[in-house]
Amino acid sequence: MAPQPWLALTRTVRFGDTDAAGVMHFPQLLRWCHEAYEESLECFGVAAAEVFPTPGSVLEVALPIVHCSADYFRPLVCGDAITIRLEPVRLDLGSFEVRYSFTSPDHAVAQGLTRHLAIENPSRRRCGLPTAINRWLEASNLGGIQPV
Amino acid sequence: MAPQPWLALTRTVRFGDTDAAGVMHFPQLLRWCHEAYEESLECFGVAAAEVFPTPGSVLEVALPIVHCSADYFRPLVCGDAITIRLEPVRLDLGSFEVRYSFTSPDHAVAQGLTRHLAIENPSRRRCGLPTAINRWLEASNLGGIQPV
Amino acid sequence: MAPQPWLALTRTVRFGDTDAAGVMHFPQLLRWCHEAYEESLECFGVAAAEVFPTPGSVLEVALPIVHCSADYFRPLVCGDAITIRLEPVRLDLGSFEVRYSFTSPDHAVAQGLTRHLAIENPSRRRCGLPTAINRWLEASNLGGIQPV
Amino acid sequence: MAPQPWLALTRTVRFGDTDAAGVMHFPQLLRWCHEAYEESLECFGVAAAEVFPTPGSVLEVALPIVHCSADYFRPLVCGDAITIRLEPVRLDLGSFEVRYSFTSPDHAVAQGLTRHLAIENPSRRRCGLPTAINRWLEASNLGGIQPV
Repeated sequence: MAPQPWLALTRTVRFGDTDAAGVMHFPQLLRWCHEAYEESLECFGVAAAEVFPTPGSVLEVALPIVHCSADYFRPLVCGDAITIRLEPVRLDLGSFEVRYSFTSPDHAVAQGLTRHLAIENPSRRRCGLPTAINRWLEASNLGGIQPV
Repeated sequence: MAPQPWLALTRTVRFGDTDAAGVMHFPQLLRWCHEAYEESLECFGVAAAEVFPTPGSVLEVALPIVHCSADYFRPLVCGDAITIRLEPVRLDLGSFEVRYSFTSPDHAVAQGLTRHLAIENPSRRRCGLPTAINRWLEASNLGGIQPV
Repeated sequence: MAPQPWLALTRTVRFGDTDAAGVMHFPQLLRWCHEAYEESLECFGVAAAEVFPTPGSVLEVALPIVHCSADYFRPLVCGDAITIRLEPVRLDLGSFEVRYSFTSPDHAVAQGLTRHLAIENPSRRRCGLPTAINRWLEASNLGGIQPV
Repeated sequence: MAPQPWLALTRTVRFGDTDAAGVMHFPQLLRWCHEAYEESLECFGVAAAEVFPTPGSVLEVALPIVHCSADYFRPLVCGDAITIRLEPVRLDLGSFEVRYSFTSPDHAVAQGLTRHLAIENPSRRRCGLPTAINRWLEASNLGGIQPV
């Protein structure tokens, strides 16, 4: 089954992503994960200002990342075109994670994961996920979500 | 007159581009300049491997940046969609610069400049520009280039 | 005459600062400029929270960078130890610039410049520099500044 | 027991490390991990050029990162002084990992992990760790390592 269109993105490795070994410098993959998450929300129809803070707009709910990981299978070099597939997963009423798989035309090249926790501003107490994130999680899972 | 299509690009400000003032952190603009230069070459038809080093392929000519500058007119926040226009200019047989203008739908927001020098590997002596760069410079200037 | 101690800093080029050409990726120099500016203020005795925004603390005056530039004289490679000298200069009552020179033991390797403008929050109107910045500018110039 | 001096480092959170939420942007922690690993080798007495590629010097053994992870316990803001403790662990003859703990004066704030694999250039086949890395691993573990 084809994934939802907002869950399959593309990008190209740029010169500034590489290091003196000639390949992508490893923390860049986690930057790409977050940018893919932002682009996915945007393609789905969520405005950045609903989820990410901007000057003068204090959001009621922040979504800090509490864990991330990445695995690197093959070197990526400048100019490589990669496909990024996202698999968002709700963990409970107040947290979710996103799994990211990176493929070049022929191969799996890397995978990443970010885990996000909803907290209230300014108390920093745990709370429920924002509505926009819930809609994105549900649509991404095509009704496969069990009642919470 | 509309610019060549490979000279008008777009990008969106991402959360990781911002700092605690809520706006784009200033050196990111110069990263965007270089990524726009790479994307422009790619759209024009130059493969990354012709211009940028990859492992095991030593290029005869390197193009280090010897100068850059940027001016910031308005704050950019997460989610802002910007248009980047490039104006490549040959300076002499062995160097060129690229001027970049950044606009949001209504306003000029910033401008940047990178200056590139051709040098031979491994001597690091000045030399002529690679053919691929010359083709891009000439096509970008629509024949406005004087005979060299 | 020896510079003030808070105006002569050191750092080492790290692997993540380099790109596939094996040398420092050019926008990193401007990151180093800003980090040197922050470290200089800290060594002089200005707390970061007096000048840079932190969550829940809105500063009355912001100091956005309105211009920057850099010149690159020699390649920097991973492990290079460099000295950074800062020369802060007040431009008028509401703006200043910092000039940075980068040297390896034997050579000038690069120079940079950042220009900062004081603006009021949230109106974004121009205003006078914060007291902490004025003290740092004056002490850095050893009394050569005239009374304002 | 006090750790070896090359395994306890310090750094300060800088403005460019933060994002619009006012706190450290999460991939920066993994940059700090790698910089701490480089600084630890340097303090121990290993020259960067023994382990990291520089232009014109092809190393026989590369040490790509094949896995990384991070956990974030508390927000870090601009100006925070943190201590980084490294715990290097040999996994087998051709791989090792480094565990990093980040503490502010009163609290554990984050932890990270990088896993490194030795491969031969240019075949990219697995091989034994370089001598310099073996010495660092052994000294870091105070003789607790068995002869190989």
